[in-house]
Amino acid sequence: MENFEDLGFSKVDYAREKRQGFPEVIYGEGKTAEQIEIIMGKLIEKHGKVMVTRVDKEKSEHLLRTFPQATYDNLSRILVYGKPEQSFAGEVMVLCAGTSDLFVGEEAALTAEWMGCKVKRLYDVGVAGIDRLLAYRDEITKADVLIVVAGMEGALASVVGGLVERPVIAVPTSIGYGTHFEGVTPLLAMMSSCASGMSVVNIDNGFGAAYQAAMILKLVAEGVHDETSIS
Amino acid sequence: MENFEDLGFSKVDYAREKRQGFPEVIYGEGKTAEQIEIIMGKLIEKHGKVMVTRVDKEKSEHLLRTFPQATYDNLSRILVYGKPEQSFAGEVMVLCAGTSDLFVGEEAALTAEWMGCKVKRLYDVGVAGIDRLLAYRDEITKADVLIVVAGMEGALASVVGGLVERPVIAVPTSIGYGTHFEGVTPLLAMMSSCASGMSVVNIDNGFGAAYQAAMILKLVAEGVHDETSIS
Amino acid sequence: MENFEDLGFSKVDYAREKRQGFPEVIYGEGKTAEQIEIIMGKLIEKHGKVMVTRVDKEKSEHLLRTFPQATYDNLSRILVYGKPEQSFAGEVMVLCAGTSDLFVGEEAALTAEWMGCKVKRLYDVGVAGIDRLLAYRDEITKADVLIVVAGMEGALASVVGGLVERPVIAVPTSIGYGTHFEGVTPLLAMMSSCASGMSVVNIDNGFGAAYQAAMILKLVAEGVHDETSIS
Amino acid sequence: MENFEDLGFSKVDYAREKRQGFPEVIYGEGKTAEQIEIIMGKLIEKHGKVMVTRVDKEKSEHLLRTFPQATYDNLSRILVYGKPEQSFAGEVMVLCAGTSDLFVGEEAALTAEWMGCKVKRLYDVGVAGIDRLLAYRDEITKADVLIVVAGMEGALASVVGGLVERPVIAVPTSIGYGTHFEGVTPLLAMMSSCASGMSVVNIDNGFGAAYQAAMILKLVAEGVHDETSIS
Amino acid sequence: MENFEDLGFSKVDYAREKRQGFPEVIYGEGKTAEQIEIIMGKLIEKHGKVMVTRVDKEKSEHLLRTFPQATYDNLSRILVYGKPEQSFAGEVMVLCAGTSDLFVGEEAALTAEWMGCKVKRLYDVGVAGIDRLLAYRDEITKADVLIVVAGMEGALASVVGGLVERPVIAVPTSIGYGTHFEGVTPLLAMMSSCASGMSVVNIDNGFGAAYQAAMILKLVAEGVHDETSIS
Amino acid sequence: MENFEDLGFSKVDYAREKRQGFPEVIYGEGKTAEQIEIIMGKLIEKHGKVMVTRVDKEKSEHLLRTFPQATYDNLSRILVYGKPEQSFAGEVMVLCAGTSDLFVGEEAALTAEWMGCKVKRLYDVGVAGIDRLLAYRDEITKADVLIVVAGMEGALASVVGGLVERPVIAVPTSIGYGTHFEGVTPLLAMMSSCASGMSVVNIDNGFGAAYQAAMILKLVAEGVHDETSIS
Amino acid sequence: MENFEDLGFSKVDYAREKRQGFPEVIYGEGKTAEQIEIIMGKLIEKHGKVMVTRVDKEKSEHLLRTFPQATYDNLSRILVYGKPEQSFAGEVMVLCAGTSDLFVGEEAALTAEWMGCKVKRLYDVGVAGIDRLLAYRDEITKADVLIVVAGMEGALASVVGGLVERPVIAVPTSIGYGTHFEGVTPLLAMMSSCASGMSVVNIDNGFGAAYQAAMILKLVAEGVHDETSIS
Amino acid sequence: MENFEDLGFSKVDYAREKRQGFPEVIYGEGKTAEQIEIIMGKLIEKHGKVMVTRVDKEKSEHLLRTFPQATYDNLSRILVYGKPEQSFAGEVMVLCAGTSDLFVGEEAALTAEWMGCKVKRLYDVGVAGIDRLLAYRDEITKADVLIVVAGMEGALASVVGGLVERPVIAVPTSIGYGTHFEGVTPLLAMMSSCASGMSVVNIDNGFGAAYQAAMILKLVAEGVHDETSIS
Repeated sequence: MENFEDLGFSKVDYAREKRQGFPEVIYGEGKTAEQIEIIMGKLIEKHGKVMVTRVDKEKSEHLLRTFPQATYDNLSRILVYGKPEQSFAGEVMVLCAGTSDLFVGEEAALTAEWMGCKVKRLYDVGVAGIDRLLAYRDEITKADVLIVVAGMEGALASVVGGLVERPVIAVPTSIGYGTHFEGVTPLLAMMSSCASGMSVVNIDNGFGAAYQAAMILKLVAEGVHDETSIS
Repeated sequence: MENFEDLGFSKVDYAREKRQGFPEVIYGEGKTAEQIEIIMGKLIEKHGKVMVTRVDKEKSEHLLRTFPQATYDNLSRILVYGKPEQSFAGEVMVLCAGTSDLFVGEEAALTAEWMGCKVKRLYDVGVAGIDRLLAYRDEITKADVLIVVAGMEGALASVVGGLVERPVIAVPTSIGYGTHFEGVTPLLAMMSSCASGMSVVNIDNGFGAAYQAAMILKLVAEGVHDETSIS
Repeated sequence: MENFEDLGFSKVDYAREKRQGFPEVIYGEGKTAEQIEIIMGKLIEKHGKVMVTRVDKEKSEHLLRTFPQATYDNLSRILVYGKPEQSFAGEVMVLCAGTSDLFVGEEAALTAEWMGCKVKRLYDVGVAGIDRLLAYRDEITKADVLIVVAGMEGALASVVGGLVERPVIAVPTSIGYGTHFEGVTPLLAMMSSCASGMSVVNIDNGFGAAYQAAMILKLVAEGVHDETSIS
Repeated sequence: MENFEDLGFSKVDYAREKRQGFPEVIYGEGKTAEQIEIIMGKLIEKHGKVMVTRVDKEKSEHLLRTFPQATYDNLSRILVYGKPEQSFAGEVMVLCAGTSDLFVGEEAALTAEWMGCKVKRLYDVGVAGIDRLLAYRDEITKADVLIVVAGMEGALASVVGGLVERPVIAVPTSIGYGTHFEGVTPLLAMMSSCASGMSVVNIDNGFGAAYQAAMILKLVAEGVHDETSIS
Repeated sequence: MENFEDLGFSKVDYAREKRQGFPEVIYGEGKTAEQIEIIMGKLIEKHGKVMVTRVDKEKSEHLLRTFPQATYDNLSRILVYGKPEQSFAGEVMVLCAGTSDLFVGEEAALTAEWMGCKVKRLYDVGVAGIDRLLAYRDEITKADVLIVVAGMEGALASVVGGLVERPVIAVPTSIGYGTHFEGVTPLLAMMSSCASGMSVVNIDNGFGAAYQAAMILKLVAEGVHDETSIS
Repeated sequence: MENFEDLGFSKVDYAREKRQGFPEVIYGEGKTAEQIEIIMGKLIEKHGKVMVTRVDKEKSEHLLRTFPQATYDNLSRILVYGKPEQSFAGEVMVLCAGTSDLFVGEEAALTAEWMGCKVKRLYDVGVAGIDRLLAYRDEITKADVLIVVAGMEGALASVVGGLVERPVIAVPTSIGYGTHFEGVTPLLAMMSSCASGMSVVNIDNGFGAAYQAAMILKLVAEGVHDETSIS
Repeated sequence: MENFEDLGFSKVDYAREKRQGFPEVIYGEGKTAEQIEIIMGKLIEKHGKVMVTRVDKEKSEHLLRTFPQATYDNLSRILVYGKPEQSFAGEVMVLCAGTSDLFVGEEAALTAEWMGCKVKRLYDVGVAGIDRLLAYRDEITKADVLIVVAGMEGALASVVGGLVERPVIAVPTSIGYGTHFEGVTPLLAMMSSCASGMSVVNIDNGFGAAYQAAMILKLVAEGVHDETSIS
Repeated sequence: MENFEDLGFSKVDYAREKRQGFPEVIYGEGKTAEQIEIIMGKLIEKHGKVMVTRVDKEKSEHLLRTFPQATYDNLSRILVYGKPEQSFAGEVMVLCAGTSDLFVGEEAALTAEWMGCKVKRLYDVGVAGIDRLLAYRDEITKADVLIVVAGMEGALASVVGGLVERPVIAVPTSIGYGTHFEGVTPLLAMMSSCASGMSVVNIDNGFGAAYQAAMILKLVAEGVHDETSIS
């Protein structure tokens, strides 16, 4: 049983990198600082690096004492130890509709960087002032993969989705009030978008969007298979 | 009791015009052709004209036999008898995101015309191809009141709302599928819009949007009160 | 790029006034006091005045230290600096159903005043005691634009909507319990209202309602366009 | 086992009258004409009369062939055989907001009559034209129990609830569209009503409202217990 | 304007007693202790007594300093000043499904007593142990009006509704977890109940149920009108 | 690949019996009569028998022409070919709240019989007439596994769940109207039940409930394992 | 009245053990420490042992002072006094998808043990790394009853449900975010599972799942009835 | 205005190919056969080919008369005219959980083929029989982009998402019943998936998933930009 290690409360998945191309990332919410600490230790031992998401301030302080080389980002609540070995050609652009959405935008940006991507940030370009967005039209159309982070009604995703010929991954955020329902409304709106070729991830899931973006640039880097066969 | 007439199944509201500026309009859904016929007769007798909304093909044929001077529009399902006496200065622009939303756009346009407004139509300008919309930016900014009709995710309303200094009334439509939930999604999105100064009416309620637009142009035409007083 | 300024976390929209008739208003929720402070500085520099909504007590104290000429209203949580230059003829009436809805009513009233409107307040006139409302019927019918703020089941909007010939903008509030669902119920009820010509804004969005009311009085003040043309 | 009879697919509840004051009423929906026929036969044999609700046209024709003395009402879809023996003092008033709500209003009215109550009908008095309602204020305040039937946003219930000192039972109807959600919106609104002392029954459940109204007049007729005791 | 007094933030409704049979009750939630204090003063001046519901501990302490004769009940969060003048014959029974529902049961019981009713309490008789309920079958069938308070799935209401010939008012409570949705589930269940003649009030609304119960006993006490007439 | 056969549109699962104790059952909805026919042929070839659920009248006629030995039950819409080989000791009791729920009750009963269980049916014992249910208390407490089928508010499940020491599986049905939401309400109610040790299956899923009941009696028949080991 | 004891706020159900096979378990949430203390005292007096679920840290400290022999488990929040007398053959396996779900898994495991079952725990075997699950396939197929605890999308239940011939009880947990809706999503997913013979309990209801599992092993231990009879 | 052509009811978007890499595809639902015919004509004239989705049988017959070279696929309801010019290296795998999901799977497969991708189909591999899926593990891990189509609880997406290092796009389908809510449940489940790097499109939106898959293979084919710049 070399592919994972059973800690009782957790089975650390050492085979993740081989299976999915990237080592296991620890989702910090719902785990105690102690549990995270133990799993971090195991993953650092195995891979020499690790990323933890959704770590609150208090847990981060505990973890930084144990792992002083780690760094913690307040806005995105990401804690990282070590650096990516791989570096993919191409560029992921992260767009944010409003200033309040930045915590999700940075989760996406830092995740993509951690996974080996170059990232461009384009923040506060919500559609209520569409000239701000269109001022960057050239840069937008040049991006290789786009992550659009938006709360409120999430309309930015539809507009961007109609401007480019590259994959767009939309991330609804929990920023809004009333009928926004903590992100349900932009999620539904992005799902129902009139723009083709856009896909959506969970509310505030900047991590997931960046993960798929990195997978896409990884595919570009490694190239497609020559032949596969299913009878 | 001269303000209304009691028909048992209905109390025809003759005072509506004095109270609300326009005579009663008959909402056709859920009423039989016979009931509509009787109420139409009463209102024509009183006001010389009448509009009926949400009239299906079959009922319209019954009513056109009784009132051959009436005209019926298949797309919007509106039946009108007589013409507006008033004609307001200014212009209502009706924008539609997609071809499938036209039945609502036309309900709005015909209602506004019936109430005495001039109407400009700008159809199939959804944000997935934003250049189509921006090609009309001058006309859009010149409109006096704007009605934005959109299904899917309803993003058109937010973009238009950010372009103009005039009141925008958004109408979500039932056109879409899956997470669109028959119009709930664009309604929630329009409610949560990042654009300021936009208000929203019920799903497919082109009539209501046009009604408010006409009230606004009527206010412009009649001017505001000089003084009012509440102790 | 003179139309906006890129602060990284925010792109301040200097063209908003030209485009939408009023300078940008800062939505305070989800922004830090420091972010608001910087954006306020920029907008004051540009326009000589600024309004911030949804500012909690703590942030307001920070901001009042930096901008001692500003004033803060506890009930509506609005902070303003400077005064409106424009003053529109006509009057916006703000009606509140219950005492608990006043925080939204005042957001609407102060916003409308800030944008240059005269405002009349008519508070605690919910329909459970309809004689209280009808005692003011004359004043109500004289108002030029009406904003109806109501929590619970929101029935006040329907009754007022049936009394007047002027535009009514309904604002559901989060005041209620159980099946009220923090404002969803009055919102749905206002959307489904039997009164014609009423439109609705998001839950607790007194700001948005006032913004549209001001746009209407601005249109009255400036008059409609003489001719517009779409081929 | 004399209290009920087991027909396999049904256990006819002969003890209902003793237990609840009125014999079992057959709910016609989801039962075949043949099943209704058999249960009707049993109940007529036992009580000499029976009422069936929610009977569609086709089933009613089948049943009228078997029970030619029965009568069927198209609007309410109620089929009755025999007459009430009891007749309670006092009066139930049934108010309907709109013409389209009459099918529910009549279900309530006919049920109340069948159970031995006198009924007054006041139809098409929705709050959008509140003067129509207030024209009947005297009659309304004199009613002993009130049933308010309303679709759309259901605001009529709140207004009536604030006018009277007698029990009000509200019935939301499925008449409306869009955000009305087939009656959910007026139901939630009635639940959240600002009027005290109002209770609510299921969507379109005119029968249930009338049943409770009759129980109240029955209590008036029979008087309260002198003494009861719980240790 | 003698029917109400305008305090700006509130219009105290002195006509409530005449119109609805009981003086205005103050709903404490969402009002400051100071606002409640002022309104209490006005109502005591007018009626010599007053009840306030949903008063938290902290506000109650403020109010008890101003009105030392008032009494406060921790469980139901009701504060009362003065005593009912009227005393109705008959008895309201309040049933609670579980121990955790008592705060609602007591809101109902104290309200009914305040309004002049005798109350019997039957607590912790949920249907999971139906023999506990049936042990009191005699007392239950003797009650004149029944209020059934239940959280979880609310099944107690259906069982009681099938046992009696008197009006049953069901109150869903917010006690439960998961799919209970803070009371929505028992509310929907009570609405869909297979028992006839039951009506429902809002979640945790013990006050509303008691208010209707008192109206019913008041009707019994005063008797029905002899004749009313609507043309 | 002997465990399944790939038909392109379907991979027939021959290993199901070995893995799950019963051969694959065909879910008829969403499959054409032709597809069912082919899969039936394969499964009959392999197992000598097959059951198909949710087969409408029209498809059943097609299938009965190909497999004249099969039998079809109109009420439950189940089509079976062949007979169970196994026969488990013990008894499954299927209780139905109302006559309209029988189509689900029979799906459960026929499935359990097909899988080798003896079944007792107890129909129309809804809690509105609880004496009908309690008349069978002895039989109920003797059943080995109980399936409770109920629409409306689903309260029968809670009452039965409180009477027995054996596993209860609750099946909500789509029978009801208004706030019943096609079975969502009894499902939520059953989930939130105050009775311990009850589990729930999907709306109208009589098949699933019977499947689990049969698994339980199979476990009784085969006995538990003596030792199992997880390191 | 020997079957229960009336404490006013509670009716302690001494007949539960006879009726349902296990003595009453106290649900700690919504009860004060004092109420729990009194009921515990009564049940210990009667049965010599008691279990309390959903006890928070603070209440547990109060209770441990009164009952020093009791033990409290922090993770599951269960407090127990005394030991089970019965011990059933067979084994309940509790599977958890993720580390964060352990608090529910332990509620299930401790409850099952308290009721007399042997329990095997298999934790952190979510389907994102399916090899971790399949590594235990032998142990899984040998379990007699399986409880699958999963948050997020709950897919583990479907996969396990397809691997075994024994009853599977699925427990959705509140662990997740965004569209997870505090457990609603895995609950709906488990209900809609493609695996046959699986039933579901309320969100986080490890207790309920274990209760049913114990009932199943109790049935195995006691054997089925030889004959039952319903006419 | 060469970028689009205004047909009144539609503005045909000739610039789509330049902007988004593929010419406009016609969404057939909600458009009349006549409208589709006209737009098809315009697009064929411009691009020599066109695809129409969601075309029902009846409209397809009308269109095939006008464009006899077109071909129509009954299962996916796609009508195509002409062939793709581009052909991308790499392979899109389309997995379907059940036979009933094939109509969505084929929409995805045909769309991807039309856009120039090679497609492998792997159908009926739902997780209830996970060995069927794992039998194809090699082929699955070799695919370059994966589209997972699943109704019911949608668990297949999570399992596949955990097996591969390539982008997975999940498509929930409307196939299921009860708590499946016409696809909402698998959509929510896919959104909440424990597998990283998966994104989701609207219910039944095979087209959208294929569109994004094709964009990814197009990016692979064209390679990433060397440098982009945002000031």
